[in-house]
Amino acid sequence: MSLWIRYTTGRDGQYRAGFGVLENGGIAEYEGDMFDAPRATGRVIAFDDVTPLSPCVPSRIVALWNNFHALSAKLGKALPKHPLFLIKPSTSLAGPGDIVQRPASYEGKIVYEGELGIVIGKRCSNVSVEDAANYVFGYTCVNDVTAADLLFEDANFAQWCRAKGYDTFGCIGPAIATEFDWRNTHVVTTLDGVERQNYPLADMAFPPLEQVSRISRDMTLLPGDVIACGTSLGVGSMRDGATVAVSIEGIGTLTNRLSDAKAEPRVQSLVNTPAGSLATADDAR
Amino acid sequence: MSLWIRYTTGRDGQYRAGFGVLENGGIAEYEGDMFDAPRATGRVIAFDDVTPLSPCVPSRIVALWNNFHALSAKLGKALPKHPLFLIKPSTSLAGPGDIVQRPASYEGKIVYEGELGIVIGKRCSNVSVEDAANYVFGYTCVNDVTAADLLFEDANFAQWCRAKGYDTFGCIGPAIATEFDWRNTHVVTTLDGVERQNYPLADMAFPPLEQVSRISRDMTLLPGDVIACGTSLGVGSMRDGATVAVSIEGIGTLTNRLSDAKAEPRVQSLVNTPAGSLATADDAR
Repeated sequence: MSLWIRYTTGRDGQYRAGFGVLENGGIAEYEGDMFDAPRATGRVIAFDDVTPLSPCVPSRIVALWNNFHALSAKLGKALPKHPLFLIKPSTSLAGPGDIVQRPASYEGKIVYEGELGIVIGKRCSNVSVEDAANYVFGYTCVNDVTAADLLFEDANFAQWCRAKGYDTFGCIGPAIATEFDWRNTHVVTTLDGVERQNYPLADMAFPPLEQVSRISRDMTLLPGDVIACGTSLGVGSMRDGATVAVSIEGIGTLTNRLSDAKAEPRVQSLVNTPAGSLATADDAR
Repeated sequence: MSLWIRYTTGRDGQYRAGFGVLENGGIAEYEGDMFDAPRATGRVIAFDDVTPLSPCVPSRIVALWNNFHALSAKLGKALPKHPLFLIKPSTSLAGPGDIVQRPASYEGKIVYEGELGIVIGKRCSNVSVEDAANYVFGYTCVNDVTAADLLFEDANFAQWCRAKGYDTFGCIGPAIATEFDWRNTHVVTTLDGVERQNYPLADMAFPPLEQVSRISRDMTLLPGDVIACGTSLGVGSMRDGATVAVSIEGIGTLTNRLSDAKAEPRVQSLVNTPAGSLATADDAR
């Protein structure tokens, strides 16, 4: 199993994007395309010398609703026959440590949702469940942030894409774990250090390969795209300035803080990256 | 006013993507970035020598629901206080002449919706209505195709992104008109040559610059992104093999046919283009 990350390194005021695999005490640097035969450069970079980025740059995040038995039972909503999803746009992306920005136009409740994310490794369309594993690069943590008061503001149209699509509302990271076994793993979410979610991934209605297969019948998925598998019990709101950490054993902990004043400078390492491109160690050469 | 198009030219079995401006009898070729100071090459290409592509490659299509007074009245749904939208992913893109593919997994009704599309020219976030025109490159025609039977298949969650997000369900083109005046223009949609929609754009609830301003407060919009302004009366279903043409005076006519058998070879000139990138005359050099 490998843990892939993306990062920037700073030298002489110049920043350079790179990616690699976590090793004891550092990062084994790679170059090329993370999803297509990346090449090890032989260099090892100290973890303290980098600023983490989101581990990939999805062209979209496909986010599931109502995919856990426990939450479905609590909500009193039958589990769906097909994954129910919305699309978070590429510009919603945020990485580990990025500040989730309260939208300038929104004063209401902002909600965290700790989730497992599936990272697509190869373009896929109409793949079978049996074949789906060949199209998965690995797994990451997701905080699927929502401007909850907007969801049902209009009685005729649930505003899923709007409420969940704001810049920095799609937090992913810190790493992509390959060969991750979700069956015996929990998603643990803390709010300002207090545990709020701790639910087993085994409770999923549509397990990951079923999701990939079914969603690949709805749209072509691209390398780096993320499917957020939906959340379970314990969702709640983040006060301005609150810190949410989503941990999945074998992947790591994704930590993001909600901005604590509208005036706080925007810190977004990734939103400036063009949609669908993967910044690599090659980019700055 | 200019009409910008993208196209491929074929030479000796090699295809090359390009873009330019329609002129009498041909296309004045440009190179570089359509949205950032493109340079005229001085070459003029005969229109008969090119295969049209979608005029831009959006990272997403933001598609509005319930934005016309007439349709709102017919549906008996109050007009919204903010644009109601879903996101069609980059992979839903199709260009003029492309075949709309019936999804392999779907036997139900497929519906056309003729619409005006706004093409974003500059990255924009939180722009005012007064400033919005500076971020609009131009206007195009849209056929916002929908797998209608899926929309309300699940009683708990309207599946807008799924029903409208299939590959080839986001038809745009044939050109992008700059300095287009929507106020005195109609959208005319024909189904196999018979007029089915003919509605005035003046009936829009949120006019284009209001849409750009408001949606830019919900997400950062990127160059080439398209906002589909919503449709009005006359939406209907396309039988397999049917041809839909969406015409807007000053822009042109966008024609697409629905595949007439599942076995029909896929014809998709654009879906293979990476999300968010713009194929230009430079690409093949």
